[in-house]
Amino acid sequence: MKPGARIKKIPKLSDVQSRRDYRRIGITKVGVKGLRYPILVLDRQNGTQHTIAAFNMYVNLSHRERGTHMSRFIEVLNRHRGEVNLKSIPVILDDLVKKLKAESAHLEVEFPYFLEKAAPVTGAKAMVFYTCRYLASTVGQSASPRSRAGAPPRKDFRVEVEVPVISLCPCSKEISRIGAHNQRSLVAVRVRYSGFFWIEDLISLVEESSSAPIYSLLKRPDEKFITEQAFARPRFVEDIAREVASRLRRDPNFTWFKVEVENFESIHSHNAYAYVEEGKAIE
Amino acid sequence: MKPGARIKKIPKLSDVQSRRDYRRIGITKVGVKGLRYPILVLDRQNGTQHTIAAFNMYVNLSHRERGTHMSRFIEVLNRHRGEVNLKSIPVILDDLVKKLKAESAHLEVEFPYFLEKAAPVTGAKAMVFYTCRYLASTVGQSASPRSRAGAPPRKDFRVEVEVPVISLCPCSKEISRIGAHNQRSLVAVRVRYSGFFWIEDLISLVEESSSAPIYSLLKRPDEKFITEQAFARPRFVEDIAREVASRLRRDPNFTWFKVEVENFESIHSHNAYAYVEEGKAIE
Amino acid sequence: MKPGARIKKIPKLSDVQSRRDYRRIGITKVGVKGLRYPILVLDRQNGTQHTIAAFNMYVNLSHRERGTHMSRFIEVLNRHRGEVNLKSIPVILDDLVKKLKAESAHLEVEFPYFLEKAAPVTGAKAMVFYTCRYLASTVGQSASPRSRAGAPPRKDFRVEVEVPVISLCPCSKEISRIGAHNQRSLVAVRVRYSGFFWIEDLISLVEESSSAPIYSLLKRPDEKFITEQAFARPRFVEDIAREVASRLRRDPNFTWFKVEVENFESIHSHNAYAYVEEGKAIE
Amino acid sequence: MKPGARIKKIPKLSDVQSRRDYRRIGITKVGVKGLRYPILVLDRQNGTQHTIAAFNMYVNLSHRERGTHMSRFIEVLNRHRGEVNLKSIPVILDDLVKKLKAESAHLEVEFPYFLEKAAPVTGAKAMVFYTCRYLASTVGQSASPRSRAGAPPRKDFRVEVEVPVISLCPCSKEISRIGAHNQRSLVAVRVRYSGFFWIEDLISLVEESSSAPIYSLLKRPDEKFITEQAFARPRFVEDIAREVASRLRRDPNFTWFKVEVENFESIHSHNAYAYVEEGKAIE
Repeated sequence: MKPGARIKKIPKLSDVQSRRDYRRIGITKVGVKGLRYPILVLDRQNGTQHTIAAFNMYVNLSHRERGTHMSRFIEVLNRHRGEVNLKSIPVILDDLVKKLKAESAHLEVEFPYFLEKAAPVTGAKAMVFYTCRYLASTVGQSASPRSRAGAPPRKDFRVEVEVPVISLCPCSKEISRIGAHNQRSLVAVRVRYSGFFWIEDLISLVEESSSAPIYSLLKRPDEKFITEQAFARPRFVEDIAREVASRLRRDPNFTWFKVEVENFESIHSHNAYAYVEEGKAIE
Repeated sequence: MKPGARIKKIPKLSDVQSRRDYRRIGITKVGVKGLRYPILVLDRQNGTQHTIAAFNMYVNLSHRERGTHMSRFIEVLNRHRGEVNLKSIPVILDDLVKKLKAESAHLEVEFPYFLEKAAPVTGAKAMVFYTCRYLASTVGQSASPRSRAGAPPRKDFRVEVEVPVISLCPCSKEISRIGAHNQRSLVAVRVRYSGFFWIEDLISLVEESSSAPIYSLLKRPDEKFITEQAFARPRFVEDIAREVASRLRRDPNFTWFKVEVENFESIHSHNAYAYVEEGKAIE
Repeated sequence: MKPGARIKKIPKLSDVQSRRDYRRIGITKVGVKGLRYPILVLDRQNGTQHTIAAFNMYVNLSHRERGTHMSRFIEVLNRHRGEVNLKSIPVILDDLVKKLKAESAHLEVEFPYFLEKAAPVTGAKAMVFYTCRYLASTVGQSASPRSRAGAPPRKDFRVEVEVPVISLCPCSKEISRIGAHNQRSLVAVRVRYSGFFWIEDLISLVEESSSAPIYSLLKRPDEKFITEQAFARPRFVEDIAREVASRLRRDPNFTWFKVEVENFESIHSHNAYAYVEEGKAIE
Repeated sequence: MKPGARIKKIPKLSDVQSRRDYRRIGITKVGVKGLRYPILVLDRQNGTQHTIAAFNMYVNLSHRERGTHMSRFIEVLNRHRGEVNLKSIPVILDDLVKKLKAESAHLEVEFPYFLEKAAPVTGAKAMVFYTCRYLASTVGQSASPRSRAGAPPRKDFRVEVEVPVISLCPCSKEISRIGAHNQRSLVAVRVRYSGFFWIEDLISLVEESSSAPIYSLLKRPDEKFITEQAFARPRFVEDIAREVASRLRRDPNFTWFKVEVENFESIHSHNAYAYVEEGKAIE
């Protein structure tokens, strides 16, 4: 049979997934994982930005049913034509709940996000790469609105961004006659929020908390500037975590946050790590 | 200066880490991450097994101190000469608390574990690889025993193993005139337990829950056997999760578990995923 | 100093890279690796496609000079505003040679490429992900055209695409009473070519050579179709390599090719692999 | 049927792989990839070292035969009981040729190797991790010795080791008022050799060529030493490549080498890279 040829005579096939299950074990999360899909995200400078996401999309499954319907996750995604942002995510969750006849839905979207950054002295411009994540879930929702009078669904929205920075070791600087070891570090900040905010601002907040920001394009005067800036702002892995945390505390829009800092230590082949969490966690 | 030459005249250097910090932010976890180290684990068949682990080791840090002492994590590990098992892990945690003057400690150890498996018909033997993890923590412990009269530390020990298996799709089998799509799946089981148990038993439990186990060495009669076994035991990603969960339920030694199943779908380039959790979680 | 503030008074800094080196060791390749950058590629269906690439860009370095100028690689890339395709690549190479005052240049670009595919029976559409690579080099070129009268530079352009497919084992099918093990496979085809061609055609060629193509969205009638198609076209890893090779042989536009097939065996946790190469290699 | 139960009545099953193929396409390499197996390697300090390898093992396949026999690769490996070293590798290759009735065989073995290193001032000891590879092949060998009178097989043995080191930027040091950016770098050295040598010596050679070696355990006086050592030995990615190359040149045991240096630049999120190759390549 040629692909698509007999599209009108598609036979009715048994729906094995919808059969009754008797093991009495509900499935907390079931769905598709690692699906790569092109998406369109919001960009303060240019309105929108084309990027490529890895999606995990899950729903719960009642203990009565044998399987979920995997193809519907893709259909929900298609309906949104790749527009994934703080506004569309709640709608996608609702669509998953409805289309999959579930009571909860979970969405995890990871994507690279680019910012054009100007070098600190020469102003030379180039794109810098940041890994972002949207993590969203609705739990205890009901497909048929009457069935659960009262108890509203528990919704949870988080945004994460990973920001590469420079860290310069305060101990190495103080005890050494000259120089100080420094390295690339990765700061992952995850927040819960009350209102809209720009990823760009979260990135700046992290860069200001580090020994120095990183760039894709630096000419010699910029390299001199960055080297001296890092030397003037030595920071342990703990210092960066605390600096980020104290800046996040001051912004009432962030109702909860966690900060992870990982230094790719130049003097070791393992990493240094610090973790701080604060606020009303509902995870 | 030649390495090690003037070892007796080591100067006293300032301890920047121990200085007072005034930001009033305690660090939940700080330490070393991704440290590769050779270890010795218990093996039911051979007594012990040499393997290579990736370690994450963290302690908390009081809001009063600026930094932890990273080198002490390695010293604690060295003292145990690589012996990492259900008995030594609580001692390692205690050592971390004492040596780092902390109140909590966290240990995450990931390592490959090998079992010799005999093929189902010919009995041909070969080693099969499983990824294992020990995850342990003690929270709220006190270095000086008097300071916290009453409240005992909250200890938490978990073991995880990832077991590759075959899954054969029940829907594909039922609706197709002939054949059924099948694929490699990875089942990750994490348990909390009251008493000692063998990883080997957890692996068998998972393999029995799948369409068929995998092997490193199969001769033709074995391949025939496995193909027919998988065809006779079609399992969705949800089925495998439920089968594993119902077997774990029956063993009172497991006080809590979570099961994750991921199918590397042969018909897609994304994966199917199911997750079940049960028991008294204290994470 | 505030970033960008005194842009007009940038001091003249010494150019350490341009200093004479006396070790008499030329560097074959030096440059930037793993640079993530947004690019625009050609797309038969939609004209162009936004995607995100990982770039390696290298030049040679004469034994007389100490270092290359890393920032210039980014400047060359910026000048092309992310347009990377079979036409722009030779120009990028020439720009690298000129801007870096080198005699050879190498460009490696890896990017995800998406095609909208219709399911074989229902025609349901969704995007499918393929990893593509452009590999290009020019060797023995001269910045000052007079210096090397005669010998023209040796240019080399290759395109690679990785296509996920299904493979169903002919041995398992023949020896088993029922069923046959099958799995996701990855076919990597690299070609040298005389004229322009579409990646889309290379992808189709590979899919026709496999047991069955993969899709992102399949409804039940499609799943039935694919399952039966794979069962009707059993293929060893060697069969797929040979099928791809014999199709490539017939197209005179491909002057050289290599085919790598890797089966993520459902019955093992290691993979099966086959490699065929043919044509006038100039690598 | 219970596993292993009827081992004596194993039926004779058809050998699909051995059937004649008519596509007239020989397979250059076919076999198993990514097989994890425990091995025993030589260790200068302790005699032997237990480690865990990832194996790729391939043979060629005549255009006349449809498939190779994958299980035999595992059987060959089993016969050597995991002993993999410069002496056993040629024997493994010969066994692959014989057992698979091939004319060429290829072996690629990657494994972590640990050295106990003493910190440069305090002498504190800890294990440091290095990735090693054995790459070996025999081409044009004959299973039946008479068939190819004259032409001896072309054998090729290479050893590779990846050594993490510190690199400190000479440009940053010279142009900055104070400090210099530095980072973790990875140096991969691959050699062809005439006689036996210790991986330990290759590691030392690389460490001497860098700004400073890395360690797993450093106390404060060691950190001071390393910081100052790196500041006193600034090295570009090109410098490290040249230093390694000039040391390798001086050792007549190395008939060919390639050196790759990759700096995980602290000031960028992409890497700097240099590559030098020298000697009689027969690859």
